[in-house]
Amino acid sequence: MEKDVFRKFGHEFVDWLAEYMESVEKYPVNSAVKPGEIMAKLPASPPAIGEPMDRIFRDFQDIILPGVTHWQHPGWFAYFPANNSPASVLAELLTAGIGVQGMVWQTSPAAAELEEVVLGWLRRMLVLPESWSGVIQDTASTATLCALLTAREKATGHEANIRGLKIPLTVYASTETHSSVEKGVKIAGYGKENLRIVPADEKFAMVPEALEKAVREDIRAGFSPACVVATVGTTSSGAIDPLVPIGKICREHGLWLHVDAAYAGTAAILPEKRWILNGIEGADSFVFNPHKWMLTNFDCSAYFVKDAAALVRTFEIHPEYLKTGVDALVKNYRDWGIQLGRRFRALKLWFVIREYGVEGIQAMVREHIRLARLFEGWLYGHPKFELLAPVDLSLVCFRLNDGRPEEALNVLNKEILTRVNASGKIFLTHTTLKGKFTIRLVVGGRTTTERHVREAWDIIRSEAERLL
Amino acid sequence: MEKDVFRKFGHEFVDWLAEYMESVEKYPVNSAVKPGEIMAKLPASPPAIGEPMDRIFRDFQDIILPGVTHWQHPGWFAYFPANNSPASVLAELLTAGIGVQGMVWQTSPAAAELEEVVLGWLRRMLVLPESWSGVIQDTASTATLCALLTAREKATGHEANIRGLKIPLTVYASTETHSSVEKGVKIAGYGKENLRIVPADEKFAMVPEALEKAVREDIRAGFSPACVVATVGTTSSGAIDPLVPIGKICREHGLWLHVDAAYAGTAAILPEKRWILNGIEGADSFVFNPHKWMLTNFDCSAYFVKDAAALVRTFEIHPEYLKTGVDALVKNYRDWGIQLGRRFRALKLWFVIREYGVEGIQAMVREHIRLARLFEGWLYGHPKFELLAPVDLSLVCFRLNDGRPEEALNVLNKEILTRVNASGKIFLTHTTLKGKFTIRLVVGGRTTTERHVREAWDIIRSEAERLL
Repeated sequence: MEKDVFRKFGHEFVDWLAEYMESVEKYPVNSAVKPGEIMAKLPASPPAIGEPMDRIFRDFQDIILPGVTHWQHPGWFAYFPANNSPASVLAELLTAGIGVQGMVWQTSPAAAELEEVVLGWLRRMLVLPESWSGVIQDTASTATLCALLTAREKATGHEANIRGLKIPLTVYASTETHSSVEKGVKIAGYGKENLRIVPADEKFAMVPEALEKAVREDIRAGFSPACVVATVGTTSSGAIDPLVPIGKICREHGLWLHVDAAYAGTAAILPEKRWILNGIEGADSFVFNPHKWMLTNFDCSAYFVKDAAALVRTFEIHPEYLKTGVDALVKNYRDWGIQLGRRFRALKLWFVIREYGVEGIQAMVREHIRLARLFEGWLYGHPKFELLAPVDLSLVCFRLNDGRPEEALNVLNKEILTRVNASGKIFLTHTTLKGKFTIRLVVGGRTTTERHVREAWDIIRSEAERLL
Repeated sequence: MEKDVFRKFGHEFVDWLAEYMESVEKYPVNSAVKPGEIMAKLPASPPAIGEPMDRIFRDFQDIILPGVTHWQHPGWFAYFPANNSPASVLAELLTAGIGVQGMVWQTSPAAAELEEVVLGWLRRMLVLPESWSGVIQDTASTATLCALLTAREKATGHEANIRGLKIPLTVYASTETHSSVEKGVKIAGYGKENLRIVPADEKFAMVPEALEKAVREDIRAGFSPACVVATVGTTSSGAIDPLVPIGKICREHGLWLHVDAAYAGTAAILPEKRWILNGIEGADSFVFNPHKWMLTNFDCSAYFVKDAAALVRTFEIHPEYLKTGVDALVKNYRDWGIQLGRRFRALKLWFVIREYGVEGIQAMVREHIRLARLFEGWLYGHPKFELLAPVDLSLVCFRLNDGRPEEALNVLNKEILTRVNASGKIFLTHTTLKGKFTIRLVVGGRTTTERHVREAWDIIRSEAERLL
């Protein structure tokens, strides 16, 4: 592609994206295509000779776009957000263009050092211990796996890496923990049967006494407790495990404490919400995702550890072809995780934090929390809606409850959700809380305003009332 | 950021990148900064309030760019390439802008289905068995880990996921295998001591008889051989393990055969080079990186498996909050790897293959191989240079040899490499082959032409002759 062609289409794509970002609301938030519908429009074989970019771009708009679920739509209330921002998109453009692969310091000193700096910024924004070290991972799943692996190595004196896992190590997480814990426990070779599911309380937070009991029972039974994964902001309901008593139990028994705050961590930049991380200094590792609620487009997961040497010792490899003259002086992030190759992801984080400033990000997060509380208030004001979990941050769990039997309520609420999502105006997802089919509404879109939350309420309420 | 500001800076960045891509040659290929130099220029704390984008962009140019090692420089002959292309960069811009997270089909049907289609294209381009399934992973390290995990599960009847690894499974790879195999073996809980390092022949390819012997000895000694990782295009020298006899041994003893062709796989799109994958139909899994030598910017690793069900069974999880109404009908790629969240990486692959066409990509790869052979010829024509490995593709391994003792030769060649890289015009890296310090030259940059390879030869030869 000639320089002028790149420039022409670059400008065209930028203009198209400028329009898209402003007017994404005009699209149905979740795609209405049927399974196989997109595939049927695409040839099974690649073209032998090159095609003009305007045809490719037209196909992007005509074939791909109708199959896109619009995560940046202001009516996105599903799962958790993965919000992005113009500054982040601009940074990704540069990242792709310069095409750096930052596996070791030498392969781009700026990538390694900017990563260290911006992770330091995040550490200060969240008021994490100053001595902790940070590294960007792709997702919280990967970060949690890194924690489980480092815990495994610590519990075995770094023997599992050499000999495999010979002793029955156990891992603890609550009933509400994310599925990545089970996945990580399996990958790291603990075995799912050695993952202890600790009961949660009425608010869906881990019960520390139950944890302590489980740990003691395991010790008595000959197991070696190795790791606790606590969650700050569970996926189902946003519950916050109490880190202070959990940390105390971990210290007493020598367990690794990993804190998964993938979604909620961003809220800790608000002084009035920093309490969600009370006790974090008792943890060994911590992850939160700037790619969820901090305007940095996916993927960008911030992983912090107390003891960086333990992490590096878990992953380091020393092939000749990767040795450089400065290895003793610098951070080679290839040894801080699973992958060898690394994108220059620090750049977008740097762009985002500078473009918004800490106060700008705080203002957005504060507003999202206000909107969630507003929605919570409307639920309270309605005779038939029921809140199913406390609203600490921006996630609201609820259902319609007209007194019919539980099973019928589940059917009813599932139907409400289906109808609400069929509107194309908003997109919500569900979970189960104490066996109850639960509708989740998370406020987190960059362009989501009070008008959108009101509209969501109008749609939900009218669909519900129509069904009663 | 207002729409007009985004548009203004978007255009500015596109123009800057257009210039950068054309004139990257004017920069020193590898950054000359000292450890800590970039960090010293950056504030330790984040800004409280937002900053204008022109200041951020100025700092990108003034502070970050001098610390960047330019992977897209035509004088890049180091490691392996990670070449990108204008079409790929444009696609990444769209990907970032629409900000899709494709963890399950529902969260963007187009992302899932386009992935299936373009992986099908790659399968045809490389002439892999039509029944195989493909999925995009971030890196070959991750893909190899997925293979090791699936092999572990297969060898234990999917018991390791549940109970941990109770039997001594063994893994086999050659002395020349990539470091990701050791890393993966440790992560998956096999234990490094159960990784058998199989001898290589004079050409650095795995010796099948030695593999067979090792497998038989292990069986006799009570081990359970589980997996062989063969390499097509080793990192040190580009050696090609013979897949036909290795596959035969694997079938005979029921071992999983994973083929790591991270770099070399791309060459299989050339009919005259397809032989490198002879015997691939006997493998269980295969990985190559379009982000290395196929114009698709990092990261994009193509992983293919014979038995997709075994892969999915290894990773699947079923939390309520991820269930959708179409799960039985579609591919949910969250169950095809480690991470839950997934970027829409198929888009750039689709853009690249369409923009170049298969013939366009073939032409580039063919030219790179021709240039490597040309360089090889110059080495032959020089009385003091010595080739240290066969040149099958685009990697040339050599050293200066004036007859001095081996240890002194190592010092001499290390010094040549240091001086060559100090030129700022070209960047090469090293390895060790049979104890010999080896200089590696890989041709793979999109804009690398015969002129650049000639210039590389001039620099290398004159530095060498100066040292004699």
